[in-house]
Amino acid sequence: MPSVAEYRDRVQRVQAAMATRSLAALVVADPANIYYLVGYDAWSFYTPQCLIVPAVGDPHFFARTMDAAGARFGADLGPERVHGYPEELVHRPDRHPYQWICQRAKEIGLLPDDGQIAVEADAHFFSVRGYLALAELCGADRLIDSAELINWVRVIKSDYEQDQLRRAGRICSVAMATALDVIEPGVRQCDAVAAISSAQIAGVDDQGGDYPAIVPLLPTGAGAGVPHLTWTGDRFVGGEVTTIELTGVSRRYHAPLARTVMLGRPPRRLSLVAGVVGDGMAAVLELIKPGVTADEVHAAFDAVLARHQLIKESRLGYSIGIGYPPDWGERTISLRTGDQTQLRSKMAFHVIAGMWADGWGYELSESILVTDAGAERLTDVDQVLRVKGR
Amino acid sequence: MPSVAEYRDRVQRVQAAMATRSLAALVVADPANIYYLVGYDAWSFYTPQCLIVPAVGDPHFFARTMDAAGARFGADLGPERVHGYPEELVHRPDRHPYQWICQRAKEIGLLPDDGQIAVEADAHFFSVRGYLALAELCGADRLIDSAELINWVRVIKSDYEQDQLRRAGRICSVAMATALDVIEPGVRQCDAVAAISSAQIAGVDDQGGDYPAIVPLLPTGAGAGVPHLTWTGDRFVGGEVTTIELTGVSRRYHAPLARTVMLGRPPRRLSLVAGVVGDGMAAVLELIKPGVTADEVHAAFDAVLARHQLIKESRLGYSIGIGYPPDWGERTISLRTGDQTQLRSKMAFHVIAGMWADGWGYELSESILVTDAGAERLTDVDQVLRVKGR
Repeated sequence: MPSVAEYRDRVQRVQAAMATRSLAALVVADPANIYYLVGYDAWSFYTPQCLIVPAVGDPHFFARTMDAAGARFGADLGPERVHGYPEELVHRPDRHPYQWICQRAKEIGLLPDDGQIAVEADAHFFSVRGYLALAELCGADRLIDSAELINWVRVIKSDYEQDQLRRAGRICSVAMATALDVIEPGVRQCDAVAAISSAQIAGVDDQGGDYPAIVPLLPTGAGAGVPHLTWTGDRFVGGEVTTIELTGVSRRYHAPLARTVMLGRPPRRLSLVAGVVGDGMAAVLELIKPGVTADEVHAAFDAVLARHQLIKESRLGYSIGIGYPPDWGERTISLRTGDQTQLRSKMAFHVIAGMWADGWGYELSESILVTDAGAERLTDVDQVLRVKGR
Repeated sequence: MPSVAEYRDRVQRVQAAMATRSLAALVVADPANIYYLVGYDAWSFYTPQCLIVPAVGDPHFFARTMDAAGARFGADLGPERVHGYPEELVHRPDRHPYQWICQRAKEIGLLPDDGQIAVEADAHFFSVRGYLALAELCGADRLIDSAELINWVRVIKSDYEQDQLRRAGRICSVAMATALDVIEPGVRQCDAVAAISSAQIAGVDDQGGDYPAIVPLLPTGAGAGVPHLTWTGDRFVGGEVTTIELTGVSRRYHAPLARTVMLGRPPRRLSLVAGVVGDGMAAVLELIKPGVTADEVHAAFDAVLARHQLIKESRLGYSIGIGYPPDWGERTISLRTGDQTQLRSKMAFHVIAGMWADGWGYELSESILVTDAGAERLTDVDQVLRVKGR
C-alpha cells in the first residue's frame, strides 16, 4: 500500500490542479480516482458513492451505509470523513442518494455556496439522475465538467505504482502463456477462459492477482474480426484464428497484452499482416522516450504500415494504470493522430496494434513504462503470430 | 437464443409501455436492456453506445465503428439499423459520440422534433456528458427519465429466460461447492477465487459459464463485517468466518447465492444468528407465491428475527435476470418495507439475508423463480453455516 504521505501528496496535486481552475470543490465518482486519492477499494460502485475534494482540506467519502463501513480497510480516511447514507435510499424511484449526499456535504462545508463545483461528467458510475439531484440542490450553472482532472494527475506513476505495474506485467505474462497453451481445436472457449481467469486471479508466488477491469477477450473464427466479443461454449476449430486480449492485475494496476493464435496453417495475408505489425511495433518501441508526442508514436507505426499499403483507423494505444470495470484505460492520452501530448518519464501505455478485417483479425500489443532510457516492456511474451498444429 | 418472434414481442411490450407515457423515443444505454431487446452482447459498453427505440418501428443501434461490426453476431439487427460512429470520437475532450449519434438519429427520423424523449437516467453507462450532448441538440426540456421502463418489462421471464436462469443456477451450485471446498486455513484468498472463477466460467457439461456481473466476494475475518470487499493475497486463518457471495451465469442470466463458512469452532452468537436466519429464510420461501407483496416478504423475515431481538436494516432481496458489470440486480422490485409490488408468476429474485456486525458477518441467500406453486429454488446447496475443522 502507498504511504500516507503519498496519498496526501496525490490529494495536494489534485488540489493544485483545482486551484488553477478556481474550483470550489470536485465531486469524484470514478472508483479509480477514489482509490487513487484515498485507497478505498470495494465492489460498491454499483450504488452511488463519491469522494468530495474541497479546495482546501481533506476529502470526505460518501457511500451506502453498509459500504461506508469498508472505508476503514486500507483507506486513508478517518471515520469523521466517512458518511453512510441510509439503506432505504438504494434503488428508489422517488428519492436519490445524491440528495442526501449533497445535503450532508453542504452541512459540513464541503460544498460552499459560491464557486464552481466540478463533476466527473464522463465517469461510468456518476449517473444522470445523480447529476440532476446535485444540479437541483447546488444550481446547474455552478456544475462544470472536471475534464478528467484527476485522471491527468494519474498519468505520472510513483515508484509504488511502477512496482505494481511490473507485478501486473508478471501476472499477465503467465496468463497469456496459459491462453496460448490452452487454446486448441476441440476445447470449449469457456474452458479456455476458465484456465486464463484462474491464472489471472491466482497471480504469481509473491503477488496474488486482482480482478480484471475487462474479462479475457478471445474472439475466434468469423468473430475474430470483431474485437470486443466475449466467449461462448463453442469449441475452437482447426483452421481458425483467435485474437487474445487479457491483462494481469496487481492491486487494481493493469498491464494488458494482446496476442494472436492460429490453429493450423495461417492464410498468407494473415502472415503478411503479422510481419508488418511486428515491424511497426518494433519501430514504436524504438521511438518511445520522453519528449516524443503521442501523435509521433502513431505516425511511426503508420509509416511502417504505409509501406505495405495497410492503414490503421483506430488509435494505437492509451494511458494505463488503475482500472475498474468496464475499462482499464485512463481516458487521457491516446496514441493517435492529433494528440500532441508529450510522453514523459513514468507514464505507462498499452500500445495495441489491432488490425481487423471481415473474417479475421490480428492483434499484437505491449504494455510499457516510459523511462529515461526508453520503453520498458512490462511483460515478456514473444511478439509473433502463434501457430499451432500447422 | 430467443426466437426472432420473442425479440419482436419484447420491443412491442416496451413500445406499449412507451405509449402509455406518450414517449416519442427511448434512448437505451443499459447493456442489459440492449441485450434484452435485440440480443447484442459484447464488452463494448465502456465507450458510448445506445439503442434508440422509436414510438413505432424498429429500434436502431449506435456504437463505435469497431463495435458496430459485432452487431451482426447473434443480434436481431439488420445492417441498415446499425450505425458506427468514427473512431476519432473516442475519449476526446472537445467532442462527444452522442453529438454524432443524435445528429444521425435525427436524420433518419428516430428522434422527432416533437414529443418527449426518455433517457435511462440511472443507467451506469449513460454518462452526464452524453446526456448534456443530447440535451443541447434535442432540448433539455424534452428529455425525461425513463424510470427503468425496460427493466420493469423485464421482470416477467419468458420460458427461454426461465431456462437460462435454471442453467445459471446449476452453474452456481457447482461454483459454491467449489468455494466451500477450497476455503481452508493457509490457502491464499486469491487462489480460492481462482478456483471459484474457473468453476463459474467453465460452467457445466451442457452449458458453458458466462462472466459474472459481480466478482466472487468473500470478505473474511474482520472484513467479514463488510459485504463488498474483494479478495487479497492473504491466507485464510483458522478461527475466522468468511461470507461468500457468488453467481452462476448462463448467457448473461444470473442466479446468485450466498453462504458462510467458519474455519473452526463458531462463536455462540454466530451459530445463533445462523439458526435464526435459516428459520427466516424458510418462512420467506414458504410465503412466496403470486399475489404476495415485496413488503410482506420482508415482514415475514422480520417477524422471525424479532422473536430473537434481531433486526435487518437493508433490503432482503431484489429482482434478478440479465446482468452486466457492475450489478446483477434489475433495479426494480426490492424486497423491503414499503415496496407494495405484488409478486407474480415468472418473476425471479435473489433473496439475501445478510447480517453484518463489527468483526463478523453471516450471509444466506437463495435465487428463486416465482411459480404458481410457490418459490422454485434455482440452486441446490445446503442452507447451513458450513463449519470446517472444528
